[in-house]
Amino acid sequence: MDQKKPVILITNDDGITAPGIRALVEAVKDLGQVIVVAPDSPQSGMGHAITIGTPLRLNKVSVFEGIESWQCSGTPVDCVKLARDKILHRKPDICLSGINHGANHSINLIYSGTMSAAMEAAIEGIPSAGFSLLDFSFDADFTVAKKVVRNIVTRMLKETMPEHLLLNVNIPKVDEAGFKGIKLCRQAYAKWEENFDHRVDPRGKDYFWMVGRFVNMDQGDDTDVQALHDGFASVVPVKFDLTDYKIKDWMQDTWKELV
Amino acid sequence: MDQKKPVILITNDDGITAPGIRALVEAVKDLGQVIVVAPDSPQSGMGHAITIGTPLRLNKVSVFEGIESWQCSGTPVDCVKLARDKILHRKPDICLSGINHGANHSINLIYSGTMSAAMEAAIEGIPSAGFSLLDFSFDADFTVAKKVVRNIVTRMLKETMPEHLLLNVNIPKVDEAGFKGIKLCRQAYAKWEENFDHRVDPRGKDYFWMVGRFVNMDQGDDTDVQALHDGFASVVPVKFDLTDYKIKDWMQDTWKELV
Repeated sequence: MDQKKPVILITNDDGITAPGIRALVEAVKDLGQVIVVAPDSPQSGMGHAITIGTPLRLNKVSVFEGIESWQCSGTPVDCVKLARDKILHRKPDICLSGINHGANHSINLIYSGTMSAAMEAAIEGIPSAGFSLLDFSFDADFTVAKKVVRNIVTRMLKETMPEHLLLNVNIPKVDEAGFKGIKLCRQAYAKWEENFDHRVDPRGKDYFWMVGRFVNMDQGDDTDVQALHDGFASVVPVKFDLTDYKIKDWMQDTWKELV
Repeated sequence: MDQKKPVILITNDDGITAPGIRALVEAVKDLGQVIVVAPDSPQSGMGHAITIGTPLRLNKVSVFEGIESWQCSGTPVDCVKLARDKILHRKPDICLSGINHGANHSINLIYSGTMSAAMEAAIEGIPSAGFSLLDFSFDADFTVAKKVVRNIVTRMLKETMPEHLLLNVNIPKVDEAGFKGIKLCRQAYAKWEENFDHRVDPRGKDYFWMVGRFVNMDQGDDTDVQALHDGFASVVPVKFDLTDYKIKDWMQDTWKELV
């Protein structure tokens, strides 16, 4: 390991062969010593899943020229844990996840394998960022996204970051002319309203496909959803202390007899 | 549906046949109209996973006497979504998840299927609670846990709760004599430090089992870990706005040129 260059761990949840992780590697490969440890298959919607009941496989692969790369049979969180314990034998200096094919803004961040990998690293005290492009397609154009990644990662490496820094970065689906810049935001209260498409299989049994539409219940102009709508890349700093101190105070007053 | 009784949706992540969900049903069945929608197999460690790429199965089953029960092929979060959309056709009045066989305190809540189900409901505006007993065994004694559940659910049903109320309740492994009461807490910065047990399969290929030990890095006396250690059941109100406003302010000052 080159002692002078920062060690950059890269993972994702679309799998190591997705164009998005290639764009991420290309955007930062000259900024440090890049190591890729990513799932061997798509893991979208896995949230903060970890693999307990089955063993994990880890194989060195040749995917990115000149970059040490490993594919793992587990989830994005498993990748981060395995990378630290079995490949790096130390903490990387930063951890980057993505670039996800599809948005992870607002409450969607909770369901996001991309962000879970970055959160896992941040819990460990590794400054981290997850990147997502608002374009689900395999052939998505990562030109603007790569610039955003490069700007943010350069800034992260400029000086010592807060130990548990965790950034949720979303990039709008715009071309360079339409791109307005990077904006610091809060998480919007906006989410997918799911319902289920009911079908009957050839044997007469019911089954259901999850479908839904995105609903923004948050009128704030400082949210990630609004920034993306306006053509900005959104940056939301994320925490993993999920205690609701406001409700805690309310309960302290009103649930006195019980707690 | 009985219009006078509150509708109580119950789910878990250990599967519908686990003793813990039976204890939860028994603890609250006379407090409302109970409906159970739970996974057909154990889902521990699934975090906030949802099922996108495969269809879901939902089958009415006979598990709890006099209680409408359904088993679902998906995750705990899928169960909550399906219950609302395909079984209840409305929001339940409250949603309860558990009783989990094993702890979900401190940062572990992020990995918890039990808490994810409750969080899914809270996001939807359904006051919710997840319950976990600090005993992994199938034969765990739920006597104390059932009393805690009953006390908390009774309190939740007493008056209108905050719309997004979400409680993470953990119960210590103690008998009635050793139980100290219920304590309102914050989430501890404490977590599993994982490493991987490296083995070689009969074909000469490497594989890894996740193993670890629990480490408390938080010296506060107001945390869930401390309360449980002292023999209390811990109650942490949980939020799903993960924005770190403190880091946001810091970035506003120091990242001026970029965001």
